[in-house]
Amino acid sequence: MSLRLACVRSEVQQMAGYVPGCQPLPGTEIIKLNTNESPLPPSPEVVQAISQVLVDSALLRRYPDPYSQQLRRVAAGIAGCQPEQVIAGNGSDELLRIVLDTFVEEGERVAFFAPSYSLYPVLTKIRGGKAQVMPLFADGTIYQPQLDGVKLFFLTSPNAPLGFSFSNDYIRQMAKGFAGILVVDEAYADFAQDNALSLLPELDNLVVLRTLSKSYGLASLRVGLGFSSSPLIEQLDKVRDSYNLDRLAQVGAVAALKDQEYLRKTVALVVTERERLGVALEKLGFTVVPSQTNFIFVTPPSSHKAVDLYAGLEKAGILIRYFSDPQLAHGLRISIGTRDEMDQLIIVIKKLLAI
Amino acid sequence: MSLRLACVRSEVQQMAGYVPGCQPLPGTEIIKLNTNESPLPPSPEVVQAISQVLVDSALLRRYPDPYSQQLRRVAAGIAGCQPEQVIAGNGSDELLRIVLDTFVEEGERVAFFAPSYSLYPVLTKIRGGKAQVMPLFADGTIYQPQLDGVKLFFLTSPNAPLGFSFSNDYIRQMAKGFAGILVVDEAYADFAQDNALSLLPELDNLVVLRTLSKSYGLASLRVGLGFSSSPLIEQLDKVRDSYNLDRLAQVGAVAALKDQEYLRKTVALVVTERERLGVALEKLGFTVVPSQTNFIFVTPPSSHKAVDLYAGLEKAGILIRYFSDPQLAHGLRISIGTRDEMDQLIIVIKKLLAI
Repeated sequence: MSLRLACVRSEVQQMAGYVPGCQPLPGTEIIKLNTNESPLPPSPEVVQAISQVLVDSALLRRYPDPYSQQLRRVAAGIAGCQPEQVIAGNGSDELLRIVLDTFVEEGERVAFFAPSYSLYPVLTKIRGGKAQVMPLFADGTIYQPQLDGVKLFFLTSPNAPLGFSFSNDYIRQMAKGFAGILVVDEAYADFAQDNALSLLPELDNLVVLRTLSKSYGLASLRVGLGFSSSPLIEQLDKVRDSYNLDRLAQVGAVAALKDQEYLRKTVALVVTERERLGVALEKLGFTVVPSQTNFIFVTPPSSHKAVDLYAGLEKAGILIRYFSDPQLAHGLRISIGTRDEMDQLIIVIKKLLAI
Repeated sequence: MSLRLACVRSEVQQMAGYVPGCQPLPGTEIIKLNTNESPLPPSPEVVQAISQVLVDSALLRRYPDPYSQQLRRVAAGIAGCQPEQVIAGNGSDELLRIVLDTFVEEGERVAFFAPSYSLYPVLTKIRGGKAQVMPLFADGTIYQPQLDGVKLFFLTSPNAPLGFSFSNDYIRQMAKGFAGILVVDEAYADFAQDNALSLLPELDNLVVLRTLSKSYGLASLRVGLGFSSSPLIEQLDKVRDSYNLDRLAQVGAVAALKDQEYLRKTVALVVTERERLGVALEKLGFTVVPSQTNFIFVTPPSSHKAVDLYAGLEKAGILIRYFSDPQLAHGLRISIGTRDEMDQLIIVIKKLLAI
């Protein structure tokens, strides 16, 4: 029996698909520092709010609000914009897909820096766009890329997996000279000193994306938020599936966003541990990229290979992230964990270096 | 300030977007028979399973299993196939989108009967395919459509919003003569006498879609399932977002699927009430399409307009579905509710007819 693979689009046949970081099943004993989850559980208000939905289990049989109205209202209040300027997604990954489906015609160019989020080229291929990779460091400095003929640019700020931020001056300059749409993917912005939300009123081609997976400790719920002008949000909304966000995710996200005090505590803990880990690793001879996120990208001393340290840590029950991409293979990305987790990490790294 | 709407794809600019059925916010006092939700809450096992995740709220901060492994295993067990033949989606709506993105090149033809699910033309436009609408009743009978040059066919069986099923003989004949992919969208199959899952081993171009929104009472959780050959599922999986299904949805869906006894009870109640409502409305002069679903499509006696009855019911606090589409405007779609809800519906309809 022929398997009808010939019916599959050639772009899909040829592509490898995105490879997510390892997610051990619950119960696995491990220090998990590989996918930038929060070291803290979400606000207790989240569990409270979801539990209340469960009490009236008849709510489970009903479709959720297709417009995520409460969530968008609360998000707009925090961002200082109107609810009509907000779109809610099944993770910001869904919003990346919606942005591509809204703006990019078959064959149009979608650009982004490398290294940045490795999902961009995959989603661009699925859409049928042409991915244009711009090297991030031509000579070690940040530059304004040439954007003629580009329809959409994904700017990851703070950058992942390196951790540094692009300034609002940089973003403003990029957007102003650009005939296409600039998407600033701010998954880690809550850990940064600045963010691009304040630029929305002055830039009509700006889309800012956020996620609750990192700073709000809600990776399990899959909630992303997009911000732009209301006319552009209206177009994105036509491409969004009506029921893209389930009731429990909506309710949990609202509770998390309302507890800004808890967010501040989480961010303070992460920033403290991030700085402490950076100093400790520099003392051990690592090069550390100054980070505005909840992870750091570090290069071990020349006596040791990154991939070996990664394997050694894994053997010791500590999972971090190693990228085989030649631009990144010299280093390691480490999510910031609790104080205890960071202490244990440093102990194991010291042991591995002493071999 | 120009609003950069010119950057939006022309297909998206021009399209209206899908309009979901009305979803009153929780707390609204209404008999809701407009979007085919289950009259019963989901199995108590669902609430139990989700509550257990909440007890260990640290689980909320972790990404869910990107492969929905447990869910696919359980679903495969029930369907009598391998887990590699199953894909899980954020509702079957997401699976429709994934199928289009996997198989349909820009400009290729996507066909479906009209009337059927009104989301198909919207999703086809977003993908950039050409929607080809095939009239369902040329002369009142079901026929095999001409499929030359069609890449993908969406067959809604049982049909929505009319409620009748296509036989497996019909589906087999359609798939065998077809060079493209046949998607049988079986959102309502649990209420039907037969379904197409048994055809999977003999048809290499068949994709069967299911949802937990109807028979399992889980519309709020957004869980859909797709079944096909494992090589085709592997391709669909590349297009699927890695974290498309949140942890609570995965856990809730597993619990619901495991409780097949509860499913049987729900289906039995719905079928009983469906037949009872059909008989009652026929007595009142309605024409009733024999239904294999959890709704019935009925045409009022010629003395009354469907749209007036719809408005009268709404005024009395009963929400059903009226479609302005000329092919459907003569009738009304009524979701099957509890025995009490059906009794109240009949009382109000009698009053409205007596005016």
